[in-house]
Amino acid sequence: MKYIEDRVEDIQITYIGGGSRGWAWQLMSDLAREPQLAGTVTLYDIDYEAALQNEKIGNRLKDREDVKGKWQYRADKSLESALKGADFVVISILPGTFDEMASDVHAPEKYGIYQSVGDTVGPGGLIRGLRTVPMYVEFAKAIEKNCPEAFVINYTNPMSLCVKTLYEVFPGIKAFGCCHEVFNAQNLLAAALKDIEGIEGATREEIKINVKGINHFTWIDEASYKGLDLMPIYKQFVDKYYENGFEEGKTGNWMNDFFESANRVKFDLFKRYGIIAAAGDRHLAEFMSGNWYIENPETVMDWKFSLTPVSWRKEDLKERLAKSKRLVKGEEVFEVKDSGEEGVRQIKALVGLEELVTNVNLPNEGQIFNLPRGSIVETNAIFRRGQVLPIVAGKLPSAIQGIATRHITNAHLILEAALEKDKKKAFVAFANDPLVNISLEDTEELFEEMLKNTAAYLPGWKL
Amino acid sequence: MKYIEDRVEDIQITYIGGGSRGWAWQLMSDLAREPQLAGTVTLYDIDYEAALQNEKIGNRLKDREDVKGKWQYRADKSLESALKGADFVVISILPGTFDEMASDVHAPEKYGIYQSVGDTVGPGGLIRGLRTVPMYVEFAKAIEKNCPEAFVINYTNPMSLCVKTLYEVFPGIKAFGCCHEVFNAQNLLAAALKDIEGIEGATREEIKINVKGINHFTWIDEASYKGLDLMPIYKQFVDKYYENGFEEGKTGNWMNDFFESANRVKFDLFKRYGIIAAAGDRHLAEFMSGNWYIENPETVMDWKFSLTPVSWRKEDLKERLAKSKRLVKGEEVFEVKDSGEEGVRQIKALVGLEELVTNVNLPNEGQIFNLPRGSIVETNAIFRRGQVLPIVAGKLPSAIQGIATRHITNAHLILEAALEKDKKKAFVAFANDPLVNISLEDTEELFEEMLKNTAAYLPGWKL
Amino acid sequence: MKYIEDRVEDIQITYIGGGSRGWAWQLMSDLAREPQLAGTVTLYDIDYEAALQNEKIGNRLKDREDVKGKWQYRADKSLESALKGADFVVISILPGTFDEMASDVHAPEKYGIYQSVGDTVGPGGLIRGLRTVPMYVEFAKAIEKNCPEAFVINYTNPMSLCVKTLYEVFPGIKAFGCCHEVFNAQNLLAAALKDIEGIEGATREEIKINVKGINHFTWIDEASYKGLDLMPIYKQFVDKYYENGFEEGKTGNWMNDFFESANRVKFDLFKRYGIIAAAGDRHLAEFMSGNWYIENPETVMDWKFSLTPVSWRKEDLKERLAKSKRLVKGEEVFEVKDSGEEGVRQIKALVGLEELVTNVNLPNEGQIFNLPRGSIVETNAIFRRGQVLPIVAGKLPSAIQGIATRHITNAHLILEAALEKDKKKAFVAFANDPLVNISLEDTEELFEEMLKNTAAYLPGWKL
Amino acid sequence: MKYIEDRVEDIQITYIGGGSRGWAWQLMSDLAREPQLAGTVTLYDIDYEAALQNEKIGNRLKDREDVKGKWQYRADKSLESALKGADFVVISILPGTFDEMASDVHAPEKYGIYQSVGDTVGPGGLIRGLRTVPMYVEFAKAIEKNCPEAFVINYTNPMSLCVKTLYEVFPGIKAFGCCHEVFNAQNLLAAALKDIEGIEGATREEIKINVKGINHFTWIDEASYKGLDLMPIYKQFVDKYYENGFEEGKTGNWMNDFFESANRVKFDLFKRYGIIAAAGDRHLAEFMSGNWYIENPETVMDWKFSLTPVSWRKEDLKERLAKSKRLVKGEEVFEVKDSGEEGVRQIKALVGLEELVTNVNLPNEGQIFNLPRGSIVETNAIFRRGQVLPIVAGKLPSAIQGIATRHITNAHLILEAALEKDKKKAFVAFANDPLVNISLEDTEELFEEMLKNTAAYLPGWKL
Ligand SMILES: [Mg+2]
Ligand SMILES: [Mg+2]
Ligand SMILES: [Mg+2]
Ligand SMILES: [Mg+2]
Repeated sequence: MKYIEDRVEDIQITYIGGGSRGWAWQLMSDLAREPQLAGTVTLYDIDYEAALQNEKIGNRLKDREDVKGKWQYRADKSLESALKGADFVVISILPGTFDEMASDVHAPEKYGIYQSVGDTVGPGGLIRGLRTVPMYVEFAKAIEKNCPEAFVINYTNPMSLCVKTLYEVFPGIKAFGCCHEVFNAQNLLAAALKDIEGIEGATREEIKINVKGINHFTWIDEASYKGLDLMPIYKQFVDKYYENGFEEGKTGNWMNDFFESANRVKFDLFKRYGIIAAAGDRHLAEFMSGNWYIENPETVMDWKFSLTPVSWRKEDLKERLAKSKRLVKGEEVFEVKDSGEEGVRQIKALVGLEELVTNVNLPNEGQIFNLPRGSIVETNAIFRRGQVLPIVAGKLPSAIQGIATRHITNAHLILEAALEKDKKKAFVAFANDPLVNISLEDTEELFEEMLKNTAAYLPGWKL
Repeated sequence: MKYIEDRVEDIQITYIGGGSRGWAWQLMSDLAREPQLAGTVTLYDIDYEAALQNEKIGNRLKDREDVKGKWQYRADKSLESALKGADFVVISILPGTFDEMASDVHAPEKYGIYQSVGDTVGPGGLIRGLRTVPMYVEFAKAIEKNCPEAFVINYTNPMSLCVKTLYEVFPGIKAFGCCHEVFNAQNLLAAALKDIEGIEGATREEIKINVKGINHFTWIDEASYKGLDLMPIYKQFVDKYYENGFEEGKTGNWMNDFFESANRVKFDLFKRYGIIAAAGDRHLAEFMSGNWYIENPETVMDWKFSLTPVSWRKEDLKERLAKSKRLVKGEEVFEVKDSGEEGVRQIKALVGLEELVTNVNLPNEGQIFNLPRGSIVETNAIFRRGQVLPIVAGKLPSAIQGIATRHITNAHLILEAALEKDKKKAFVAFANDPLVNISLEDTEELFEEMLKNTAAYLPGWKL
Repeated sequence: MKYIEDRVEDIQITYIGGGSRGWAWQLMSDLAREPQLAGTVTLYDIDYEAALQNEKIGNRLKDREDVKGKWQYRADKSLESALKGADFVVISILPGTFDEMASDVHAPEKYGIYQSVGDTVGPGGLIRGLRTVPMYVEFAKAIEKNCPEAFVINYTNPMSLCVKTLYEVFPGIKAFGCCHEVFNAQNLLAAALKDIEGIEGATREEIKINVKGINHFTWIDEASYKGLDLMPIYKQFVDKYYENGFEEGKTGNWMNDFFESANRVKFDLFKRYGIIAAAGDRHLAEFMSGNWYIENPETVMDWKFSLTPVSWRKEDLKERLAKSKRLVKGEEVFEVKDSGEEGVRQIKALVGLEELVTNVNLPNEGQIFNLPRGSIVETNAIFRRGQVLPIVAGKLPSAIQGIATRHITNAHLILEAALEKDKKKAFVAFANDPLVNISLEDTEELFEEMLKNTAAYLPGWKL
Repeated sequence: MKYIEDRVEDIQITYIGGGSRGWAWQLMSDLAREPQLAGTVTLYDIDYEAALQNEKIGNRLKDREDVKGKWQYRADKSLESALKGADFVVISILPGTFDEMASDVHAPEKYGIYQSVGDTVGPGGLIRGLRTVPMYVEFAKAIEKNCPEAFVINYTNPMSLCVKTLYEVFPGIKAFGCCHEVFNAQNLLAAALKDIEGIEGATREEIKINVKGINHFTWIDEASYKGLDLMPIYKQFVDKYYENGFEEGKTGNWMNDFFESANRVKFDLFKRYGIIAAAGDRHLAEFMSGNWYIENPETVMDWKFSLTPVSWRKEDLKERLAKSKRLVKGEEVFEVKDSGEEGVRQIKALVGLEELVTNVNLPNEGQIFNLPRGSIVETNAIFRRGQVLPIVAGKLPSAIQGIATRHITNAHLILEAALEKDKKKAFVAFANDPLVNISLEDTEELFEEMLKNTAAYLPGWKL
């Protein structure tokens, strides 16, 4: 890495999951837009062909005139050699395939358990966690060996468990997890500001918030725009839209998009707990009792959010694979645009080009003092040259702390179960999830079935 | 209090709930059997007439030749004057009447929620908690004012919440909570010793155990009889009786007694977690998911324990009232026999007549280091002149710790809710209980109904 | 307070110690330079005449053309009425007079104990602490009653003890302590950057540092200028100047100024512990063993720093009193210039006009996880509208943690001693200070003498 | 190990330091007196000849008629094979020789630093610690490998550091440290009981105490004899003997015995802190400031305790070596008598033959909640079959906690320094000891000299 007056060159970024047709392209796009950074991106993927395609797509970019950030892309077959000398490691993988994810999300349906996402908590999130841990054990070991000083940015879910595993295996790792759910909450606050106060044009960055919680169950207890306190404004906004919801998604209508909602769950949680839930309704619903917002498709319809079917994800992937081919062949031009993610800004801050305050997932050292030390929590942190320092966010209200603790306990049990290949421990977590409100016998049956469906990713387990 | 060579006289005991026809008689009986102690028992009860009856019953005893412990009994109309100068305070009350308890236990049944006891956790235990806290606030204040140095022995449920409230209001209080559930587990271990090893005659006191957990969800991870390790013996015992259960109750058959069981829940928990659950099945079942052992009366039947109906308690009370009258009039002779409780032995130890190690409920100062500091936990403690010092019991297995933490969180929420008269907070605990597996709407409806049924004991609440 | 598009008006600041001829004038000057703020400053001082003089000096300012910040000044005889409605409270007092301070600093000299400042630790700092606590108890109570929502900025020493007392008495207080010692360390880093790398013009704000420790015993373990790591640069700098020291003070020579030094203590500590001591040598020396840097005036001379005599302070005060008279009469024009303090920038951030990261003293909630929870620690914090959130700074090296813990223990003992008027407890802290290396008899004699000298400020003590 | 109705046979005890002519003989003697235990003692010593001599001495015993406990003794040249299959491991070694100890104790004297024992804290204790750690690292590893389930009883000083090292290297170890200093305090309480109340014949075991602190700086805050509170009685006793001291040693006069004292330090500490210091004056004095009780030989004389010269220890050793020869040859008969130590009673309890409450050194899991988690603390513990469970002892008064924390910090620094062979870290601890009240230069000189004197035991260090 070479720092030259407001520019840093020769940065080495290693991308684990570098064959991805979503997150990888977003990073390429953001790097292409950034004039102050340059270097090499090494793409590692268990699907080497996919990484090779992205190498080609990426390398086309640097010759384009509209591209300000010039990067070399290189696919690598070996995790170890890909990591050698890395300054930054980005991890964004799909743990398993969409077939395993289909089991995660849909297998529980026959027992009346529905999931809107199924990648964080719930039976799906927990089973996904079981197969993710061994992968992250391998990553952590390889990072410790090949680039112990690198900053590691995780995008994979289940976020808390991925980050926890990295620190468990290599306590000296400089890893943090990033998620854009909180950004949406900032945008919603900007919308409230406009709707209630008539103040337009507030950017997301101008909406200053205090963030506290665990990933996808994150909360905001202070929000300001310049000299204005946004908390009473949000209260009015919720009162106004509580019954029918408020929508401002890409499509403008939650019914037309598997990722949208009308924020009704968020509003209901605000009314119950007095602070702002800061993740999307699809995520939030999964953290509460299975009988609340997500009892069955009708309840979900009433609360105006969506159950994202894995079949949709499979279709979507097909489209992205086709697009990838066109990009490789040059039949389509790669669109360079702001992804909305903050990875590149974080890298800029970490090499000393700016200072940034944003929300990340890190081990709790005191930033939320009524959650367990060492559990992965999401709060603001300050990014500077060589440091990510979490900001003390204060206590969670005890009601929310109780629910968060339950999920943290489950995550730690899943981690232990995965490390010890202990089926009994995994079952305890599974049965303790708030969505699993079924009989002991059914719980055991479902658990067995789901484990079997993901068995290919549980090496060494006695199933 | 006067210590005279292996005897202590002039002990002042104040009994809150002194009109009781159960616990109070047991204390009278145990005191009557104990030659080394003497003094006065002051009986306080909101039902003054009941206290007066017990005064009469008690005062008959000291003239009997077979009675070795000579005590003066005195009913007092005022809590404050009853406590003045007390060396020991015993609290054993019924919070509310059996009408409120009928609501606690049976109101949830129309939503498919069943409870075997309903006085600790579950919707019943939590609502009972709400009405108990203000009573204990009053007790704690009166003790701080009138006898701050007294030892306070609590028998009332919900145990953890009662003890927590005392410490919350008067942090200097010397209170602890006693429960005999663990004694039954010791007796079961003695039965296993006889059944598997053929060793007879082991007394409960000879079965040495390490106790850890929260009241009614207590666990044993070490058990010995002299030089023998009882853990592998218990394992064989469980394997032998897992399917059909093991019974050794007073009636010999769980179906004939609302307080018996065949220990099948206990055995199942042992198989799942590898350590011994040390409370009765009726209690244990209520701590687990509502869909496990207690989904409906049929499941309960399969697991061979009982749902104790409050109607039975009402009937039983009638009988005890009749008996009380006979005892007062002298138509029946008060039977002096060992109650099986340890209160009197504890008093003996606390005045310096012996040393005693037994299980009690105390604030966690480190005795169980993966439960929250300050939560009420049940472990062994050593009793000596002027001191009850808890013994470090070590960690709970993480699976059990997760479930215990959930109930602890709920108890703390109920305490906060009761102190702040905050309905929202109480609802969060209510909805977070593992037995409450019903829709959000139903949960709210049930909660409202149960609050209303107990409203007479929620002064100052906005219902 | 009124927020109007990038400006805030009607701010109410209450200044306790508002008669001061040092800190108060600096605040006036900084407020006069700041165009975005306006309002009223209420001056409270036990010397009401002094406050009145400052009222006059302050009110002259707003009519001057070169003054951009227009403020009303008002002296108030009553602490309570002065605080009513305050948005901000500034506390900057002299606890007692320079006569008490003369005893603090010079009484120990006859026992061979020397102190360079005598206001933080050492016999002087501890006795000063004893008389300061009751004043801060009064402040905290008055703030809780009259302006519980105000932000409270403390400048008085002993810093940690003053801030601790405020939180002890009123746990909900929004207080923090400010000290410019760390700013000097940033300037020294800028000097090193110029000296070693030839890079000129780096401003203090551009020197990004991670701050950790307790006030006046603060440390820096990460320092950057843009993309440069300053730690290896500082190492070279220390190696170069270790023997002779490095001076860049106002006078350029530590011998001519009682507040200067040649940084030799700082350099020696860096060599010993590997991280940068971030307070002035006069302060640092007092935290270490009395036999190290400050054994006697000759040692001090060798290490090239100064023992500030209180006689100088008395002389200096006379000059400032004369200046005050001239300013009141208009015989001298008040000079408006940057004070170098950050109070006004902090106020700007707290009303929402900017975001600021700077070092402050706050109760430890996890920002330094190997110092006790609740002790007052100095780290960076982020200032935003309505919030000061500390930044997690990480562990102190165990060697430094040991010394810091000793001083923290002493401060807590002094607080307890002052609250309980317990001479024995105060003596334990006194005897435990690293400067007090004298016999038990001498220690007791000195302690008695110093207590007597400050007795006027120890109401209710049995001396 | 074989449990047979109130007897246990085939116990394997491994004695590290088994060539000792003090502690080893005491164990032999206690084992010989105990009819309920039998088995093999394996003696391991770096001086194999010494172990062989003890083998012979030990094996003579079992044929004697007056010997009730029959044990086989066996010297072993290899630590590993000696530990194989051990049920109990006793460690009692001299770290280094008396030549190193002479440097520990006497080298500091030329700088005016005196030490009465020099094996726990002070410059001597810390340097001794540095050379002890590597030995204990080796023991811990060998125990983990050869007998991980064995109970390990440590008698070596520095006690806290020895036990800490064992747990640091092998966290699963079942080790605890034993010291008889507290027993003497119980005897002193019995003497006070006789002197003040005229009650004779109270045994040490009948004096019930609550123990808290760190080894050799242990405190008693509750003491009873049957129904009597001994605290007020001890107060009268101290008042009576404060000026002239109280003696009841073997010789009856502290001036004639290097191990006796008149308890004046203990009495002075009681007056200062209000609770009973429970170690001998020679130990206690070393924990306080070097200017208090131990400034020079005259101060020590005034306080009526002794500085034990290492020359005396060397002479004493000569005598014991001669005695050993006589015992081996059968020229002298081994005297079987109660040693006053509790090792054998502890073993009896741990195999299930009795229940024992006594004081031991264990990692802090909450037993003293204002000392750091994981530091080695001394409190009561309960011994039962297979378990040593510490008893919660409560907080130390903050004054004592401050001093204890300073020594704990130093011990942890010494451990880190020894593990990392880090001279700088060791120096920080050394300079931070309360006895080291000399200039920086002298401190460095003394430290260098003492390190050099012990260099043979610091393998791998750069000195
Ligand atoms: Mg996400
Ligand atoms: Mg019970
Ligand atoms: Mg300062
Ligand atoms: Mg000892």
